[in-house]
Amino acid sequence: MENLLNTLSVKPTIQNRSALAVDDKPQVIRVAFFISDGTAITAETLGRSILSQFASVPFETRVIPYVDTIETAEAAVKHINEAYQSTGILPLVFDTIVDPDIRAVVNSAQACNLDMYEGLIGRITDEIGVEPDGHSGHAHDNVDSETYKSRIDAVHFALDNDDGARTRHYDMADIILIGVSRSGKTPTSLYLALQFGIRAANYPLTEDDLFDNQLPKALQPHRGKLFGLIIDTERLQKIRQERRAGSRYASYKQCEEEQRAIQAIYMTQNIPSLNVSEMSVEEIATRILQITGLKRRIG
Amino acid sequence: MENLLNTLSVKPTIQNRSALAVDDKPQVIRVAFFISDGTAITAETLGRSILSQFASVPFETRVIPYVDTIETAEAAVKHINEAYQSTGILPLVFDTIVDPDIRAVVNSAQACNLDMYEGLIGRITDEIGVEPDGHSGHAHDNVDSETYKSRIDAVHFALDNDDGARTRHYDMADIILIGVSRSGKTPTSLYLALQFGIRAANYPLTEDDLFDNQLPKALQPHRGKLFGLIIDTERLQKIRQERRAGSRYASYKQCEEEQRAIQAIYMTQNIPSLNVSEMSVEEIATRILQITGLKRRIG
Repeated sequence: MENLLNTLSVKPTIQNRSALAVDDKPQVIRVAFFISDGTAITAETLGRSILSQFASVPFETRVIPYVDTIETAEAAVKHINEAYQSTGILPLVFDTIVDPDIRAVVNSAQACNLDMYEGLIGRITDEIGVEPDGHSGHAHDNVDSETYKSRIDAVHFALDNDDGARTRHYDMADIILIGVSRSGKTPTSLYLALQFGIRAANYPLTEDDLFDNQLPKALQPHRGKLFGLIIDTERLQKIRQERRAGSRYASYKQCEEEQRAIQAIYMTQNIPSLNVSEMSVEEIATRILQITGLKRRIG
Repeated sequence: MENLLNTLSVKPTIQNRSALAVDDKPQVIRVAFFISDGTAITAETLGRSILSQFASVPFETRVIPYVDTIETAEAAVKHINEAYQSTGILPLVFDTIVDPDIRAVVNSAQACNLDMYEGLIGRITDEIGVEPDGHSGHAHDNVDSETYKSRIDAVHFALDNDDGARTRHYDMADIILIGVSRSGKTPTSLYLALQFGIRAANYPLTEDDLFDNQLPKALQPHRGKLFGLIIDTERLQKIRQERRAGSRYASYKQCEEEQRAIQAIYMTQNIPSLNVSEMSVEEIATRILQITGLKRRIG
Protein backbone atom coordinates (compact mmCIF):
# COMPACT_ATOMS: atom_id res chain seq x y z
CA MET A 1 0.00 0.00 0.00
CA GLU A 2 1.43 3.35 -1.01
CA ASN A 3 1.00 6.24 1.34
CA LEU A 4 0.79 9.50 -0.50
CA LEU A 5 1.80 11.59 2.43
CA ASN A 6 4.94 11.71 4.53
CA THR A 7 3.71 13.76 7.43
CA LEU A 8 5.86 15.51 9.94
CA SER A 9 4.55 18.02 12.38
CA VAL A 10 6.76 20.90 13.38
CA LYS A 11 6.50 21.42 17.09
CA PRO A 12 5.46 24.90 18.14
CA THR A 13 8.38 26.73 19.73
CA ILE A 14 8.37 27.54 23.41
CA GLN A 15 7.22 31.08 22.69
CA ASN A 16 4.20 29.69 20.89
CA ARG A 17 3.38 27.38 23.71
CA SER A 18 3.27 30.31 26.12
CA ALA A 19 1.17 32.30 23.69
CA LEU A 20 -1.13 29.31 23.62
CA ALA A 21 -1.39 29.23 27.39
CA VAL A 22 -2.21 32.93 27.60
CA ASP A 23 -4.92 32.75 24.97
CA ASP A 24 -6.32 29.66 26.62
CA LYS A 25 -7.95 28.41 23.45
CA PRO A 26 -6.75 25.81 20.97
CA GLN A 27 -4.48 27.34 18.36
CA VAL A 28 -5.13 26.56 14.71
CA ILE A 29 -1.91 25.57 13.02
CA ARG A 30 -1.46 26.39 9.36
CA VAL A 31 -0.42 23.50 7.13
CA ALA A 32 2.47 23.84 4.67
CA PHE A 33 2.83 21.34 1.82
CA PHE A 34 6.03 20.52 -0.06
CA ILE A 35 5.03 18.96 -3.37
CA SER A 36 7.08 17.73 -6.29
CA ASP A 37 7.12 15.36 -9.23
CA GLY A 38 10.28 13.80 -7.78
CA THR A 39 11.54 13.14 -4.27
CA ALA A 40 10.38 16.62 -3.15
CA ILE A 41 13.78 17.13 -1.51
CA THR A 42 14.28 20.42 -3.35
CA ALA A 43 10.81 21.76 -2.53
CA GLU A 44 11.22 20.73 1.07
CA THR A 45 14.73 22.13 1.51
CA LEU A 46 13.85 25.57 0.21
CA GLY A 47 10.40 25.54 1.79
CA ARG A 48 11.72 24.75 5.28
CA SER A 49 14.42 27.33 4.90
CA ILE A 50 11.80 29.97 4.05
CA LEU A 51 9.46 28.90 6.85
CA SER A 52 12.35 29.22 9.30
CA GLN A 53 12.22 32.96 8.54
CA PHE A 54 8.88 32.95 10.38
CA ALA A 55 10.12 31.23 13.52
CA SER A 56 7.31 32.61 15.68
CA VAL A 57 4.65 30.96 13.52
CA PRO A 58 3.98 27.24 14.01
CA PHE A 59 3.38 25.22 10.86
CA GLU A 60 2.45 21.62 10.34
CA THR A 61 4.37 20.40 7.32
CA ARG A 62 3.49 17.63 4.89
CA VAL A 63 5.60 16.26 2.07
CA ILE A 64 3.99 14.83 -1.07
CA PRO A 65 6.58 13.37 -3.43
CA TYR A 66 6.06 11.89 -6.91
CA VAL A 67 3.11 13.99 -8.02
CA ASP A 68 3.80 13.13 -11.65
CA THR A 69 0.37 12.33 -13.09
CA ILE A 70 -2.99 14.08 -13.24
CA GLU A 71 -4.34 11.45 -10.82
CA THR A 72 -1.66 11.99 -8.15
CA ALA A 73 -2.09 15.75 -8.58
CA GLU A 74 -5.82 15.39 -7.96
CA ALA A 75 -5.11 13.33 -4.86
CA ALA A 76 -2.75 16.06 -3.64
CA VAL A 77 -5.44 18.69 -4.23
CA LYS A 78 -7.81 16.63 -2.12
CA HIS A 79 -5.30 16.64 0.74
CA ILE A 80 -4.72 20.38 0.44
CA ASN A 81 -8.43 21.16 0.40
CA GLU A 82 -9.00 18.93 3.42
CA ALA A 83 -6.28 20.82 5.27
CA TYR A 84 -8.02 24.07 4.39
CA GLN A 85 -11.39 22.77 5.49
CA SER A 86 -10.14 21.41 8.79
CA THR A 87 -8.12 24.50 9.76
CA GLY A 88 -10.10 27.26 8.08
CA ILE A 89 -6.87 28.95 6.95
CA LEU A 90 -5.23 28.65 3.56
CA PRO A 91 -2.40 26.13 3.48
CA LEU A 92 0.92 27.17 1.95
CA VAL A 93 1.88 25.01 -1.03
CA PHE A 94 5.55 25.01 -2.06
CA ASP A 95 5.91 23.13 -5.29
CA THR A 96 8.50 22.25 -7.91
CA ILE A 97 6.46 20.58 -10.64
CA VAL A 98 7.70 20.88 -14.19
CA ASP A 99 4.75 19.68 -16.29
CA PRO A 100 2.39 22.66 -16.78
CA ASP A 101 -0.77 20.50 -16.90
CA ILE A 102 0.04 18.75 -13.63
CA ARG A 103 1.07 22.05 -12.06
CA ALA A 104 -2.24 23.57 -13.12
CA VAL A 105 -4.12 20.86 -11.24
CA VAL A 106 -2.10 21.46 -8.06
CA ASN A 107 -2.57 25.22 -8.43
CA SER A 108 -6.34 24.73 -8.48
CA ALA A 109 -6.33 23.80 -4.78
CA GLN A 110 -7.60 26.19 -2.11
CA ALA A 111 -4.19 27.37 -1.01
CA CYS A 112 -1.52 30.04 -1.15
CA ASN A 113 0.50 28.66 -4.08
CA LEU A 114 4.23 29.24 -3.96
CA ASP A 115 5.58 27.95 -7.21
CA MET A 116 9.34 27.75 -6.88
CA TYR A 117 10.20 27.19 -10.53
CA GLU A 118 7.95 29.36 -12.58
CA GLY A 119 9.48 32.81 -12.12
CA LEU A 120 13.08 31.67 -12.09
CA ILE A 121 12.78 29.46 -15.16
CA GLY A 122 11.14 32.30 -17.07
CA ARG A 123 13.95 34.71 -16.24
CA ILE A 124 16.62 32.19 -17.22
CA THR A 125 14.85 31.49 -20.51
CA ASP A 126 14.87 35.21 -21.26
CA GLU A 127 18.54 35.52 -20.36
CA ILE A 128 19.96 32.51 -22.17
CA GLY A 129 17.49 32.33 -25.04
CA VAL A 130 16.82 28.60 -24.61
CA GLU A 131 13.50 27.04 -23.69
CA PRO A 132 13.48 24.54 -20.80
CA ASP A 133 13.27 20.85 -21.76
CA GLY A 134 10.20 20.26 -19.65
CA HIS A 135 11.43 16.93 -18.34
CA SER A 136 10.74 16.10 -14.74
CA GLY A 137 13.19 17.00 -12.00
CA HIS A 138 16.77 15.85 -12.17
CA ALA A 139 15.87 12.24 -11.65
CA HIS A 140 18.71 10.83 -13.67
CA ASP A 141 21.57 13.04 -12.54
CA ASN A 142 22.43 10.78 -9.68
CA VAL A 143 22.26 7.47 -11.47
CA ASP A 144 24.85 8.50 -13.97
CA SER A 145 27.14 5.56 -13.37
CA GLU A 146 30.36 7.49 -12.70
CA THR A 147 28.62 9.62 -10.07
CA TYR A 148 26.95 6.58 -8.56
CA LYS A 149 30.24 4.74 -8.40
CA SER A 150 32.15 7.65 -6.84
CA ARG A 151 29.50 8.06 -4.22
CA ILE A 152 29.18 4.41 -3.28
CA ASP A 153 32.95 3.95 -3.30
CA ALA A 154 33.28 6.92 -0.95
CA VAL A 155 30.63 5.51 1.41
CA HIS A 156 32.38 2.16 1.55
CA PHE A 157 35.70 3.91 2.05
CA ALA A 158 34.27 5.85 5.01
CA LEU A 159 32.88 2.65 6.52
CA ASP A 160 36.07 0.66 6.06
CA ASN A 161 38.16 3.44 7.51
CA ASP A 162 35.87 4.50 10.33
CA ASP A 163 37.12 5.03 13.86
CA GLY A 164 40.73 4.11 13.13
CA ALA A 165 39.63 0.57 12.25
CA ARG A 166 42.11 0.39 9.41
CA THR A 167 44.90 2.79 8.59
CA ARG A 168 46.62 1.08 5.68
CA HIS A 169 44.44 2.78 3.06
CA TYR A 170 45.13 6.31 4.26
CA ASP A 171 47.12 7.01 1.10
CA MET A 172 43.82 6.78 -0.77
CA ALA A 173 41.97 9.11 1.61
CA ASP A 174 41.05 12.64 0.56
CA ILE A 175 40.91 13.71 4.18
CA ILE A 176 41.41 12.13 7.62
CA LEU A 177 39.23 13.55 10.38
CA ILE A 178 40.65 13.40 13.87
CA GLY A 179 39.13 14.27 17.23
CA VAL A 180 38.27 12.87 20.62
CA SER A 181 35.64 10.16 21.02
CA ARG A 182 32.13 11.46 20.16
CA SER A 183 33.18 14.68 18.52
CA GLY A 184 31.20 13.95 15.35
CA LYS A 185 33.83 12.34 13.13
CA THR A 186 31.75 9.42 11.84
CA PRO A 187 28.61 11.28 10.72
CA THR A 188 30.80 13.93 9.10
CA SER A 189 32.82 11.30 7.20
CA LEU A 190 29.62 9.69 5.95
CA TYR A 191 28.08 12.99 4.94
CA LEU A 192 31.23 13.98 3.02
CA ALA A 193 30.99 10.64 1.21
CA LEU A 194 27.27 10.68 0.44
CA GLN A 195 26.99 14.34 -0.47
CA PHE A 196 30.30 15.13 -2.08
CA GLY A 197 31.84 11.75 -2.97
CA ILE A 198 34.85 12.60 -0.80
CA ARG A 199 36.82 9.70 0.68
CA ALA A 200 37.03 10.58 4.37
CA ALA A 201 38.71 8.36 6.94
CA ASN A 202 38.47 9.12 10.63
CA TYR A 203 40.73 8.37 13.55
CA PRO A 204 39.91 8.88 17.22
CA LEU A 205 42.65 10.31 19.40
CA THR A 206 42.48 8.30 22.60
CA GLU A 207 44.02 9.15 25.93
CA ASP A 208 47.28 7.42 25.01
CA ASP A 209 47.56 9.51 21.88
CA LEU A 210 46.52 12.74 23.54
CA PHE A 211 49.14 12.82 26.23
CA ASP A 212 51.97 11.38 24.17
CA ASN A 213 53.19 14.72 22.75
CA GLN A 214 53.42 13.36 19.23
CA LEU A 215 51.07 12.26 16.51
CA PRO A 216 50.13 8.56 16.43
CA LYS A 217 52.45 6.67 14.07
CA ALA A 218 49.62 5.79 11.68
CA LEU A 219 48.91 9.46 11.12
CA GLN A 220 52.42 10.79 10.75
CA PRO A 221 52.87 10.06 7.03
CA HIS A 222 49.52 11.75 6.26
CA ARG A 223 49.91 15.00 8.12
CA GLY A 224 48.72 17.04 5.13
CA LYS A 225 45.36 15.24 5.12
CA LEU A 226 44.54 15.69 8.80
CA PHE A 227 41.64 17.84 9.92
CA GLY A 228 40.77 18.26 13.59
CA LEU A 229 37.32 18.52 15.14
CA ILE A 230 36.86 20.48 18.38
CA ILE A 231 33.80 20.26 20.60
CA ASP A 232 32.94 22.31 23.68
CA THR A 233 33.44 20.49 26.96
CA GLU A 234 29.79 20.96 28.05
CA ARG A 235 28.44 19.52 24.84
CA LEU A 236 30.93 16.66 24.76
CA GLN A 237 30.09 15.75 28.31
CA LYS A 238 26.38 15.73 27.56
CA ILE A 239 26.83 13.45 24.56
CA ARG A 240 29.09 11.06 26.46
CA GLN A 241 26.77 11.13 29.46
CA GLU A 242 23.96 9.84 27.28
CA ARG A 243 26.19 7.03 26.19
CA ARG A 244 27.86 5.99 29.44
CA ALA A 245 26.25 7.86 32.30
CA GLY A 246 28.40 8.35 35.39
CA SER A 247 31.58 6.95 33.83
CA ARG A 248 34.99 8.57 34.04
CA TYR A 249 34.78 8.83 30.22
CA ALA A 250 31.75 11.09 30.63
CA SER A 251 33.11 13.19 33.50
CA TYR A 252 33.55 16.94 33.01
CA LYS A 253 37.18 16.73 34.08
CA GLN A 254 38.02 14.03 31.54
CA CYS A 255 36.21 15.81 28.70
CA GLU A 256 37.95 19.08 29.56
CA GLU A 257 41.41 17.53 29.72
CA GLU A 258 40.94 15.73 26.43
CA GLN A 259 39.76 18.90 24.72
CA ARG A 260 42.66 20.92 26.08
CA ALA A 261 45.18 18.26 25.01
CA ILE A 262 43.78 17.86 21.52
CA GLN A 263 43.73 21.57 20.84
CA ALA A 264 47.37 21.73 21.90
CA ILE A 265 48.14 19.01 19.37
CA TYR A 266 46.29 20.84 16.59
CA MET A 267 48.27 23.96 17.38
CA THR A 268 51.73 22.48 17.75
CA GLN A 269 51.29 20.17 14.77
CA ASN A 270 49.74 22.91 12.66
CA ILE A 271 46.57 20.91 11.88
CA PRO A 272 43.58 22.89 10.61
CA SER A 273 40.61 22.52 12.94
CA LEU A 274 37.03 23.58 13.53
CA ASN A 275 34.81 23.94 16.58
CA VAL A 276 31.73 21.97 15.60
CA SER A 277 29.71 22.36 18.81
CA GLU A 278 26.97 24.50 17.29
CA MET A 279 26.96 22.98 13.84
CA SER A 280 24.83 20.51 11.95
CA VAL A 281 26.58 17.79 9.96
CA GLU A 282 25.88 19.74 6.76
CA GLU A 283 27.55 22.83 8.16
CA ILE A 284 30.59 20.92 9.39
CA ALA A 285 31.07 19.31 5.98
CA THR A 286 30.64 22.60 4.10
CA ARG A 287 33.05 24.44 6.39
CA ILE A 288 35.64 21.70 6.00
CA LEU A 289 35.54 22.06 2.22
CA GLN A 290 35.89 25.80 2.59
CA ILE A 291 38.80 25.66 5.04
CA THR A 292 40.78 22.92 3.31
CA GLY A 293 39.96 23.79 -0.28
CA LEU A 294 39.15 20.10 -0.82
CA LYS A 295 37.25 19.60 -4.07
CA ARG A 296 34.05 17.61 -4.32
CA ARG A 297 34.04 14.53 -6.50
CA ILE A 298 30.35 14.70 -7.26
CA GLY A 299 27.87 17.56 -7.65
CA MET B 1 43.80 29.63 4.44
CA GLU B 2 40.12 29.88 3.67
CA ASN B 3 39.02 29.30 0.13
CA LEU B 4 35.97 31.31 -0.73
CA LEU B 5 34.97 29.14 -3.61
CA ASN B 6 34.04 25.51 -3.89
CA THR B 7 34.30 25.06 -7.60
CA LEU B 8 32.83 22.23 -9.56
CA SER B 9 32.66 22.18 -13.31
CA VAL B 10 29.73 20.50 -14.94
CA LYS B 11 30.96 18.49 -17.87
CA PRO B 12 29.28 19.37 -21.16
CA THR B 13 27.02 16.54 -22.26
CA ILE B 14 27.87 14.40 -25.27
CA GLN B 15 25.50 16.42 -27.43
CA ASN B 16 27.37 19.58 -26.51
CA ARG B 17 30.69 18.00 -27.31
CA SER B 18 29.49 17.15 -30.82
CA ALA B 19 28.12 20.63 -31.26
CA LEU B 20 31.53 21.84 -30.23
CA ALA B 21 33.27 19.69 -32.80
CA VAL B 22 31.01 20.88 -35.61
CA ASP B 23 31.48 24.55 -34.76
CA ASP B 24 35.20 23.95 -34.47
CA LYS B 25 35.74 26.89 -32.15
CA PRO B 26 36.08 27.00 -28.37
CA GLN B 27 32.71 27.22 -26.68
CA VAL B 28 32.21 29.81 -23.98
CA ILE B 29 30.57 28.21 -20.96
CA ARG B 30 28.29 30.33 -18.83
CA VAL B 31 29.03 30.35 -15.11
CA ALA B 32 26.27 29.78 -12.55
CA PHE B 33 26.85 30.76 -8.91
CA PHE B 34 25.05 29.37 -5.87
CA ILE B 35 25.46 31.86 -3.05
CA SER B 36 24.13 31.88 0.47
CA ASP B 37 24.75 33.19 3.97
CA GLY B 38 24.79 29.56 5.20
CA THR B 39 26.00 26.29 3.71
CA ALA B 40 24.44 27.19 0.33
CA ILE B 41 22.89 23.73 0.22
CA THR B 42 19.44 25.18 -0.39
CA ALA B 43 20.58 27.55 -3.12
CA GLU B 44 22.54 24.79 -4.77
CA THR B 45 19.80 22.17 -4.57
CA LEU B 46 17.17 24.35 -6.19
CA GLY B 47 19.65 25.95 -8.58
CA ARG B 48 20.91 22.63 -9.93
CA SER B 49 17.38 21.36 -10.24
CA ILE B 50 16.46 24.41 -12.33
CA LEU B 51 19.61 24.20 -14.46
CA SER B 52 18.78 20.56 -15.20
CA GLN B 53 15.76 21.91 -17.07
CA PHE B 54 18.25 23.28 -19.61
CA ALA B 55 20.11 20.03 -20.17
CA SER B 56 21.41 21.06 -23.59
CA VAL B 57 23.21 24.08 -22.13
CA PRO B 58 26.56 23.51 -20.41
CA PHE B 59 27.17 25.51 -17.23
CA GLU B 60 30.18 25.79 -15.00
CA THR B 61 28.89 25.97 -11.45
CA ARG B 62 30.51 27.57 -8.42
CA VAL B 63 29.30 27.47 -4.84
CA ILE B 64 30.00 30.34 -2.44
CA PRO B 65 28.80 29.56 1.10
CA TYR B 66 28.84 31.82 4.16
CA VAL B 67 28.39 35.18 2.46
CA ASP B 68 27.25 36.74 5.71
CA THR B 69 29.13 40.04 5.87
CA ILE B 70 29.55 43.02 3.55
CA GLU B 71 33.19 41.96 3.05
CA THR B 72 32.39 38.40 1.95
CA ALA B 73 29.63 39.80 -0.28
CA GLU B 74 32.14 42.13 -1.93
CA ALA B 75 34.51 39.23 -2.45
CA ALA B 76 31.67 37.27 -4.06
CA VAL B 77 30.89 40.20 -6.37
CA LYS B 78 34.54 40.25 -7.43
CA HIS B 79 34.31 36.55 -8.39
CA ILE B 80 31.07 37.11 -10.29
CA ASN B 81 32.45 40.08 -12.20
CA GLU B 82 35.60 38.16 -13.07
CA ALA B 83 33.44 35.34 -14.44
CA TYR B 84 31.59 37.88 -16.57
CA GLN B 85 34.80 39.46 -17.81
CA SER B 86 36.44 36.17 -18.70
CA THR B 87 33.43 34.71 -20.51
CA GLY B 88 31.74 37.81 -21.86
CA ILE B 89 28.31 36.45 -20.90
CA LEU B 90 26.35 37.27 -17.78
CA PRO B 91 26.70 34.66 -15.05
CA LEU B 92 23.54 33.34 -13.38
CA VAL B 93 23.49 34.03 -9.64
CA PHE B 94 21.14 31.92 -7.53
CA ASP B 95 21.10 33.25 -4.01
CA THR B 96 19.38 32.77 -0.71
CA ILE B 97 20.65 35.66 1.41
CA VAL B 98 18.37 37.00 4.09
CA ASP B 99 20.03 40.28 5.12
CA PRO B 100 18.87 42.98 2.67
CA ASP B 101 22.13 44.97 2.87
CA ILE B 102 24.28 41.96 2.08
CA ARG B 103 21.87 40.91 -0.66
CA ALA B 104 22.07 44.39 -2.18
CA VAL B 105 25.85 44.04 -2.47
CA VAL B 106 25.55 40.67 -4.23
CA ASN B 107 22.84 42.03 -6.50
CA SER B 108 25.20 44.80 -7.63
CA ALA B 109 27.33 42.28 -9.54
CA GLN B 110 27.23 42.08 -13.33
CA ALA B 111 24.96 39.07 -13.49
CA CYS B 112 21.49 37.71 -14.04
CA ASN B 113 20.30 37.73 -10.42
CA LEU B 114 17.92 34.96 -9.41
CA ASP B 115 16.90 35.69 -5.86
CA MET B 116 15.17 32.61 -4.50
CA TYR B 117 13.73 34.13 -1.37
CA GLU B 118 12.49 37.56 -2.22
CA GLY B 119 9.26 36.85 -4.09
CA LEU B 120 8.23 33.88 -1.97
CA ILE B 121 8.86 35.56 1.37
CA GLY B 122 6.86 38.59 0.26
CA ARG B 123 3.89 36.44 -0.73
CA ILE B 124 3.98 34.53 2.55
CA THR B 125 4.16 37.77 4.53
CA ASP B 126 1.06 39.01 2.71
CA GLU B 127 -0.78 35.75 3.34
CA ILE B 128 0.03 35.18 7.00
CA GLY B 129 0.36 38.80 8.09
CA VAL B 130 3.68 38.26 9.87
CA GLU B 131 6.98 39.86 8.92
CA PRO B 132 10.01 37.55 8.53
CA ASP B 133 12.51 37.52 11.39
CA GLY B 134 15.40 38.38 9.14
CA HIS B 135 17.77 35.93 10.79
CA SER B 136 20.14 34.01 8.62
CA GLY B 137 19.22 30.63 7.15
CA HIS B 138 18.09 27.80 9.34
CA ALA B 139 21.45 27.40 10.96
CA HIS B 140 20.15 26.22 14.27
CA ASP B 141 17.45 23.80 13.21
CA ASN B 142 19.81 20.91 13.07
CA VAL B 143 21.69 21.50 16.27
CA ASP B 144 18.57 21.29 18.37
CA SER B 145 19.84 18.63 20.68
CA GLU B 146 16.96 16.16 20.29
CA THR B 147 17.28 16.25 16.52
CA TYR B 148 21.05 15.96 16.74
CA LYS B 149 20.78 13.00 19.05
CA SER B 150 18.18 11.18 16.92
CA ARG B 151 20.30 11.64 13.88
CA ILE B 152 23.59 10.56 15.38
CA ASP B 153 21.94 7.61 17.14
CA ALA B 154 20.45 6.52 13.82
CA VAL B 155 23.83 6.76 12.07
CA HIS B 156 25.49 4.66 14.75
CA PHE B 157 22.61 2.20 14.61
CA ALA B 158 23.05 1.84 10.85
CA LEU B 159 26.79 1.29 11.26
CA ASP B 160 26.44 -1.24 14.07
CA ASN B 161 23.79 -3.16 12.16
CA ASP B 162 25.31 -2.97 8.71
CA ASP B 163 25.65 -6.01 6.47
CA GLY B 164 24.14 -8.47 8.94
CA ALA B 165 27.04 -7.83 11.32
CA ARG B 166 24.76 -7.99 14.33
CA THR B 167 21.16 -9.06 14.47
CA ARG B 168 20.40 -8.89 18.19
CA HIS B 169 19.24 -5.26 18.06
CA TYR B 170 16.69 -5.81 15.31
CA ASP B 171 13.87 -5.21 17.78
CA MET B 172 15.06 -1.59 17.91
CA ALA B 173 15.21 -1.19 14.13
CA ASP B 174 12.62 0.89 12.28
CA ILE B 175 13.30 -1.05 9.11
CA ILE B 176 15.57 -3.89 7.95
CA LEU B 177 16.72 -3.67 4.35
CA ILE B 178 17.45 -6.96 2.62
CA GLY B 179 18.88 -7.74 -0.79
CA VAL B 180 21.74 -9.49 -2.56
CA SER B 181 25.32 -8.31 -2.14
CA ARG B 182 25.85 -4.86 -3.77
CA SER B 183 22.23 -3.98 -4.26
CA GLY B 184 22.61 -0.64 -2.42
CA LYS B 185 21.57 -1.58 1.13
CA THR B 186 24.37 0.22 3.00
CA PRO B 187 24.17 3.66 1.37
CA THR B 188 20.39 3.54 1.67
CA SER B 189 20.56 2.68 5.40
CA LEU B 190 22.97 5.55 6.01
CA TYR B 191 20.91 8.01 4.03
CA LEU B 192 17.75 7.03 5.93
CA ALA B 193 19.69 7.67 9.16
CA LEU B 194 21.32 10.97 8.20
CA GLN B 195 18.35 12.49 6.42
CA PHE B 196 15.38 11.14 8.32
CA GLY B 197 16.79 9.85 11.63
CA ILE B 198 15.40 6.40 10.80
CA ARG B 199 17.13 3.39 12.37
CA ALA B 200 17.79 1.12 9.41
CA ALA B 201 19.58 -2.21 9.71
CA ASN B 202 20.56 -4.16 6.64
CA TYR B 203 21.09 -7.85 6.02
CA PRO B 204 22.57 -9.41 2.88
CA LEU B 205 20.89 -12.55 1.58
CA THR B 206 23.73 -14.83 0.60
CA GLU B 207 23.61 -17.91 -1.59
CA ASP B 208 22.82 -20.14 1.39
CA ASP B 209 19.86 -17.97 2.33
CA LEU B 210 18.62 -17.56 -1.21
CA PHE B 211 18.22 -21.20 -2.08
CA ASP B 212 17.01 -22.34 1.34
CA ASN B 213 13.30 -21.70 0.68
CA GLN B 214 12.84 -19.95 4.00
CA LEU B 215 13.86 -16.69 5.61
CA PRO B 216 17.11 -16.71 7.60
CA LYS B 217 16.40 -17.37 11.29
CA ALA B 218 17.61 -13.93 12.37
CA LEU B 219 15.00 -12.29 10.16
CA GLN B 220 12.00 -14.46 10.97
CA PRO B 221 10.85 -12.60 14.11
CA HIS B 222 11.04 -9.25 12.27
CA ARG B 223 9.12 -10.04 9.13
CA GLY B 224 7.05 -6.86 9.42
CA LYS B 225 10.16 -4.68 9.23
CA LEU B 226 11.70 -6.26 6.15
CA PHE B 227 12.04 -4.34 2.93
CA GLY B 228 13.59 -5.87 -0.17
CA LEU B 229 15.82 -4.20 -2.74
CA ILE B 230 15.85 -5.46 -6.33
CA ILE B 231 18.49 -4.59 -8.88
CA ASP B 232 18.59 -5.43 -12.58
CA THR B 233 20.99 -8.22 -13.46
CA GLU B 234 22.98 -6.09 -15.93
CA ARG B 235 23.54 -3.34 -13.39
CA LEU B 236 24.36 -5.76 -10.57
CA GLN B 237 26.86 -7.54 -12.76
CA LYS B 238 28.55 -4.28 -13.71
CA ILE B 239 28.87 -3.22 -10.06
CA ARG B 240 30.22 -6.60 -8.98
CA GLN B 241 32.56 -6.72 -11.96
CA GLU B 242 34.16 -3.49 -10.78
CA ARG B 243 34.66 -5.08 -7.42
CA ARG B 244 35.85 -8.59 -8.33
CA ALA B 245 36.40 -8.78 -12.06
CA GLY B 246 36.11 -12.22 -13.60
CA SER B 247 34.86 -13.93 -10.44
CA ARG B 248 31.92 -16.30 -10.25
CA TYR B 249 30.37 -13.70 -7.91
CA ALA B 250 30.41 -11.20 -10.77
CA SER B 251 29.23 -13.58 -13.50
CA TYR B 252 26.00 -12.83 -15.33
CA LYS B 253 24.65 -16.28 -14.50
CA GLN B 254 25.25 -15.87 -10.76
CA CYS B 255 23.74 -12.36 -10.66
CA GLU B 256 20.70 -13.53 -12.60
CA GLU B 257 20.09 -16.58 -10.38
CA GLU B 258 20.41 -14.52 -7.20
CA GLN B 259 18.00 -11.91 -8.50
CA ARG B 260 15.48 -14.53 -9.54
CA ALA B 261 15.71 -16.32 -6.18
CA ILE B 262 15.41 -13.17 -4.10
CA GLN B 263 12.37 -11.95 -5.98
CA ALA B 264 10.74 -15.34 -5.38
CA ILE B 265 11.40 -14.88 -1.65
CA TYR B 266 9.91 -11.38 -1.65
CA MET B 267 6.83 -12.71 -3.36
CA THR B 268 6.25 -15.89 -1.33
CA GLN B 269 7.06 -14.15 1.97
CA ASN B 270 5.01 -11.10 1.07
CA ILE B 271 7.87 -8.64 1.60
CA PRO B 272 7.46 -5.17 0.06
CA SER B 273 10.22 -4.46 -2.45
CA LEU B 274 11.54 -1.92 -4.90
CA ASN B 275 13.62 -2.09 -8.07
CA VAL B 276 16.36 0.45 -7.38
CA SER B 277 18.38 0.06 -10.58
CA GLU B 278 17.61 3.49 -11.97
CA MET B 279 17.42 5.36 -8.67
CA SER B 280 19.67 7.64 -6.69
CA VAL B 281 20.03 7.01 -2.97
CA GLU B 282 17.67 9.94 -2.29
CA GLU B 283 15.01 8.41 -4.51
CA ILE B 284 15.33 4.98 -2.97
CA ALA B 285 14.95 6.41 0.55
CA THR B 286 11.97 8.58 -0.39
CA ARG B 287 10.21 5.71 -2.16
CA ILE B 288 10.75 3.43 0.83
CA LEU B 289 9.05 5.95 3.13
CA GLN B 290 6.21 6.22 0.67
CA ILE B 291 5.72 2.48 0.24
CA THR B 292 6.06 1.51 3.91
CA GLY B 293 4.43 4.54 5.48
CA LEU B 294 7.43 4.72 7.83
CA LYS B 295 7.55 8.10 9.58
CA ARG B 296 10.66 10.25 9.75
CA ARG B 297 12.14 10.95 13.15
CA ILE B 298 13.66 14.27 12.11
CA GLY B 299 12.66 16.93 9.60
